[in-house]
Amino acid sequence: MSTYHPLTEVQAIAYSRQIPNLFQEGSDLASQEIGDGNLNLVFRISETATGKSIILKQALPYAKVVGESWPLTLDRARIESEALLIEEALNPDLVPHVYAYDADLALTVMEDLSDHVIMRKGLIEGNQYPLFAEHIGRFLATTLFFTSDLGKNQQDKKIQQGRFINPELCKITEDLIFDDPYRDAETNNIEAQIRDAAEQLWTDHALHLEVAILRQKFLTSAQALLHGDLHTGSIFIKADSTKVIDPEFAYYGPMGFDIGAVLANLILNFAAQEGWSKDDESRAAYRSYLLQTVKDVWTHFEANFRSLWNEHGVDRVFQTAGYQDYFLTNLLQDTVGFTGAKMVRRIVGLAHVADIDKIEDAAARERAQRLALDLGKALIRINRQVTSIDELIAIVTKETAVERGFAL
Amino acid sequence: MSTYHPLTEVQAIAYSRQIPNLFQEGSDLASQEIGDGNLNLVFRISETATGKSIILKQALPYAKVVGESWPLTLDRARIESEALLIEEALNPDLVPHVYAYDADLALTVMEDLSDHVIMRKGLIEGNQYPLFAEHIGRFLATTLFFTSDLGKNQQDKKIQQGRFINPELCKITEDLIFDDPYRDAETNNIEAQIRDAAEQLWTDHALHLEVAILRQKFLTSAQALLHGDLHTGSIFIKADSTKVIDPEFAYYGPMGFDIGAVLANLILNFAAQEGWSKDDESRAAYRSYLLQTVKDVWTHFEANFRSLWNEHGVDRVFQTAGYQDYFLTNLLQDTVGFTGAKMVRRIVGLAHVADIDKIEDAAARERAQRLALDLGKALIRINRQVTSIDELIAIVTKETAVERGFAL
Repeated sequence: MSTYHPLTEVQAIAYSRQIPNLFQEGSDLASQEIGDGNLNLVFRISETATGKSIILKQALPYAKVVGESWPLTLDRARIESEALLIEEALNPDLVPHVYAYDADLALTVMEDLSDHVIMRKGLIEGNQYPLFAEHIGRFLATTLFFTSDLGKNQQDKKIQQGRFINPELCKITEDLIFDDPYRDAETNNIEAQIRDAAEQLWTDHALHLEVAILRQKFLTSAQALLHGDLHTGSIFIKADSTKVIDPEFAYYGPMGFDIGAVLANLILNFAAQEGWSKDDESRAAYRSYLLQTVKDVWTHFEANFRSLWNEHGVDRVFQTAGYQDYFLTNLLQDTVGFTGAKMVRRIVGLAHVADIDKIEDAAARERAQRLALDLGKALIRINRQVTSIDELIAIVTKETAVERGFAL
Repeated sequence: MSTYHPLTEVQAIAYSRQIPNLFQEGSDLASQEIGDGNLNLVFRISETATGKSIILKQALPYAKVVGESWPLTLDRARIESEALLIEEALNPDLVPHVYAYDADLALTVMEDLSDHVIMRKGLIEGNQYPLFAEHIGRFLATTLFFTSDLGKNQQDKKIQQGRFINPELCKITEDLIFDDPYRDAETNNIEAQIRDAAEQLWTDHALHLEVAILRQKFLTSAQALLHGDLHTGSIFIKADSTKVIDPEFAYYGPMGFDIGAVLANLILNFAAQEGWSKDDESRAAYRSYLLQTVKDVWTHFEANFRSLWNEHGVDRVFQTAGYQDYFLTNLLQDTVGFTGAKMVRRIVGLAHVADIDKIEDAAARERAQRLALDLGKALIRINRQVTSIDELIAIVTKETAVERGFAL
């Protein structure tokens, strides 16, 4: 083992050679650094003769966002690697396989998913993924259930929780999602054309109370091992396969935060159709697909989760009459709240989404921004009263109908 | 440092001699083991010439309860010692001073409080402690506030939380408070005369749901560093001084659990007055004192907590309009629920309280047991609806009036 240093492409090849049972001895290996360089180095190492390839992901000791650079713990590589292994044990088909982890180099060696595309890109291109809802619903159900007190021995869960204390990455979420968007923070990234809407956010006290309550859940509700950053940029996809990547934000938190991340990014793309759809008809069709996916994600999650609960609840208390329904209603409410919070921050906060920012037509982009913001606010406002996923769908449909003439 | 071994009285003296600045060199020291031997050795070491004395508390690697013996982590000595130091920094007057902690021996050296009495004994003797409510209300407010996300940097809180992962002792609570009393568990300790009432508990499904929800909070709600076992046997008291001891159950949990422990043990003594009061008049008077203390504990806690929140909230989100009221209403509801759960377990669970068990007259003891059980159940049932401490007082008063003719 060596002390930490960022690898060069040549060093990445040398490192790959020594991993047992991967490449043939002395074979020709090519290396390409394909990361965006903001947080990690990502090397794709491929064997010319066989086409076989792997990914080396190495954490950098800093984060670069919009030109700023701040120090960031290398321990996140351990957290990512351990979370991937836990997820893989539960759903081998839904995460990249981890070949090796090197603590000194903050390096994870994993399966290459170059035959997949990042889901955000796929959605922007207007693709449909009929298996996605089942895949992600199952991923969410198994990872959240089996890492929680429901499906894991409660003492083992506490010890595992201790391995996923992740203060620095949680801090990013606490600031960028639950704080900055609701005040005139320097880190905010607000297009001039919607500044009025951002300013309204800063004085909406009823909304602030709901966000404070959601933040409290993020800070204190240690329900399950979360992915922690489960947007469509953390999902690799193709027609018959879904792979969840990048769980470096993993920590024990409220289950609804992960589910909400998925739903928020689907609804952000829904709003972004102001800019991407060619005509009203195709816009309505793609939006219907997205809303159906939102509903299906929850439905698949819930069906899987209830089934796991019935079959694998670790003790008799979980069979208490009414408890499962109580739990799932609360979880849906959390999900709706976190969905809204994750939409708002993508419009006025530091980090945006390509679905909306890459719309070239300024007027269409503004319509998408305002719609996403209004949908997010509506979901935050209603979160503690929702009792079915249909209510979420109805809110999105109605708000969009009022604002943009959308009809299902 | 030496490897772990239970100290003899002679070794306890030798150990005490080497602590700097405590006893005079070569002075005559007396040692007395005063623990009950169930969980810990407790040595009182005193200097004959000066009367100066200290306590050596050494964890045993097992727990003995009602003849049973099971292994128990020595790490609880570290947890106790670290929790005491945190509590002492916040309220130097309300916990014993820690002179030293020896990890290898699982040994804490602390202030001798022999001039105080255990509060449970004081209440059984019918004493009143006019300063108690202010003291314990302040203790609860400062420890719960300053170890929570409200009063502590949220990243530092996460790291501290990682030092108080306490699976084994939490397991005791999870079983003995939230599980066993509600089923026909072997560990239960049920007097034959109230077996019918215990059996009713086992089929009360509405109650089981509330207990399951309370358990979920105990398992997942990491609000603050709790004492974890704050009954009147963990409090040393005299007229002008209150000292909280024995925080070996400390972990990050729901604030209401600690407050509820205090209230539950006051109300258990309230029920126990069936056996201790000499006549109806003195019974009514002492019960009024106890109920007023229950109310005052909450009132002092709330006033201190709100004041800390207003002055020391770590960020602007805590100034959000309505948030403090929302938080305190939820906290009161948790408190009422945990109060009830901690009463029920003391009547039918493994570990009872002397307040009730030491009543010699079987009929009076049975009246006290049934009253305590009914009060506990009523508080559990109502917990999610309570909005003021007066409602808790009203429930206790009304239930006691119906059952035992008590009038305030």
